[in-house]
Amino acid sequence: MKAAVIYGVKDVKIEEVNEPSVSKKDVKVKVSWAGICGSDLHAYHYGLGIPTEPNELTGVQAPLVLGHEFAGTVVEIGEDVTDVAVGDRVAIEPLIYPDDDVYVRQGRYNLANKFAFLGVQSNGGFAEYAVMNERMVHKLPENVSLEEGALIEPTAVALQAVRESQLKVGQTVVVFGVGPIGLLTIISAKTAGAAEIIAVDISNERLALAKEVGATITINSMEENPTEKILSLHEHGVDIAYEAAGAEITFNTALTVLKKRGQLMVIAAFGKPVSIDVTQHLMMKEINITASFSYCNIFPEVIHLIASGRMDVKKVITKKIALDDLVENGLELLEKDKSHAKILIDLN
Amino acid sequence: MKAAVIYGVKDVKIEEVNEPSVSKKDVKVKVSWAGICGSDLHAYHYGLGIPTEPNELTGVQAPLVLGHEFAGTVVEIGEDVTDVAVGDRVAIEPLIYPDDDVYVRQGRYNLANKFAFLGVQSNGGFAEYAVMNERMVHKLPENVSLEEGALIEPTAVALQAVRESQLKVGQTVVVFGVGPIGLLTIISAKTAGAAEIIAVDISNERLALAKEVGATITINSMEENPTEKILSLHEHGVDIAYEAAGAEITFNTALTVLKKRGQLMVIAAFGKPVSIDVTQHLMMKEINITASFSYCNIFPEVIHLIASGRMDVKKVITKKIALDDLVENGLELLEKDKSHAKILIDLN
Repeated sequence: MKAAVIYGVKDVKIEEVNEPSVSKKDVKVKVSWAGICGSDLHAYHYGLGIPTEPNELTGVQAPLVLGHEFAGTVVEIGEDVTDVAVGDRVAIEPLIYPDDDVYVRQGRYNLANKFAFLGVQSNGGFAEYAVMNERMVHKLPENVSLEEGALIEPTAVALQAVRESQLKVGQTVVVFGVGPIGLLTIISAKTAGAAEIIAVDISNERLALAKEVGATITINSMEENPTEKILSLHEHGVDIAYEAAGAEITFNTALTVLKKRGQLMVIAAFGKPVSIDVTQHLMMKEINITASFSYCNIFPEVIHLIASGRMDVKKVITKKIALDDLVENGLELLEKDKSHAKILIDLN
Repeated sequence: MKAAVIYGVKDVKIEEVNEPSVSKKDVKVKVSWAGICGSDLHAYHYGLGIPTEPNELTGVQAPLVLGHEFAGTVVEIGEDVTDVAVGDRVAIEPLIYPDDDVYVRQGRYNLANKFAFLGVQSNGGFAEYAVMNERMVHKLPENVSLEEGALIEPTAVALQAVRESQLKVGQTVVVFGVGPIGLLTIISAKTAGAAEIIAVDISNERLALAKEVGATITINSMEENPTEKILSLHEHGVDIAYEAAGAEITFNTALTVLKKRGQLMVIAAFGKPVSIDVTQHLMMKEINITASFSYCNIFPEVIHLIASGRMDVKKVITKKIALDDLVENGLELLEKDKSHAKILIDLN
């Protein structure tokens, strides 16, 4: 079968590989659509996360098939699989973890001490076929398309961050960074009842998209000062700031524009340490800072919200490409052109 | 009357001043005991907080009478005072704020946009007599001594931080820095049901006191590595870390020894910015960082806990001095000798 195989930094090849085979609890999926994630970019451009020796959980090392945001149709099941059948349309929850872990027993399997992503530390979904344990497979109802299915994973990241935040219906939020996760955070916050959603970014194209999906105010921080603008609109500050940009300046701007007892919810990974003024920004305002990492036990709710029409996530797609074009029109393009949000690979 | 008057940095004089007079809603208290707080040290050694021009709320500027932790007996009341009577024994809640404030209306008067401390931005309790609005006065029951009364203010700081933290009965906590606030945090955490309380400090005398008031483990961070010690005792980390030391190293040690989804509660003020690794320490562990500033609506509970014998706070007192000795045996001694905890001034 054809697959996108990562060998190392800046080295992804579209090539023929053997089709994966199923074990007793496995499901084999014919992939239809797969999304390119920020962590795919980190893997391709910097080698981040890609195992150079056998991963302790999966036993897999590079070269491996990239891709962890995808959906498709079940074409084969292992003999012990009971939850899905051949022909089912499914979205993949690409988390790998052992059962005998203290956090898994608490229901927080995203925080398992041994933890891997399918398609980062094992073979994933930028391929014609992918195989995974049945617990990673979620059936899609008829009115959720496979294209939407490929968006459930990043939507789960955003919805979990919103659900774990202190947000209450009617509040005012700001989202820093409106790439795919920031856009999906806007959609999630709107669905959760935020009354005002301020989007801050440096790309007018992305900000236009942010407005389309639910932002009520957009601020291009290259053109105007976000602190002044936000405090001119909301004298006491905003209730929740979602940090989906991953930079010291946005982190500290978030602390500055929060009202007292407001919350900073970090969704982005940060490449560098962040320096904060604990007394002025944290203590005197009794700010709460927290973070959300991936997701747990939320795919069913995401699917339900999409199926019921409460969340329209398709608008975050800005381009669809063929697998053969992944490097040039995906991994390279997303690094150069910040006007893009989600790029999907068409594997139909 | 005799009073301790602060003129500026390193300039506190014990001198004769006029007795304060009462307005309609005021109460005049004959002070019995007054405690020296970390912020009195900051005021004396660095001038921090002391107004050099009239304070926007109190109209007072230096020179002024220092002291905000105190208790005494009511000797005079204004004509509109209804809550207390002459002869009542009272503890003082030294917070000054206007009624027409968004946070005051939410019950969070400690976060009022205009805010002052009695005895820092106005005349306080290091004096024979002090005057304050009746809402700052809390009656003490018979079985709470005036000495304990002077400890209610710092206990309120600690109890509020514990109450605002995520602590649940049976959990494990660590307290960094066991000066008076750290010690009172240990007492508060024990009262709130913490099963293991680890105290970290650099003074063996203070650590001995920490053990006496409820710490189950003490670590002198000059003698052993607190991270290694704590993780050797609690493989997955601790539930809550209380930061009462105010330094970058303790802040980051706290993040390191917390279990996933644990909480760092900041109680200390920080003189310098703190650099944190957001991805490793915050995101991958889904840590929650927050802070508590002074207190609100908690004096009645503190008094109740002391009166009912649930909290014995007197053990944090390490010295009692006369007002005449405030500078040498109080403000200077506490800066030099880190084995001391709370020093009370005897004004009886």
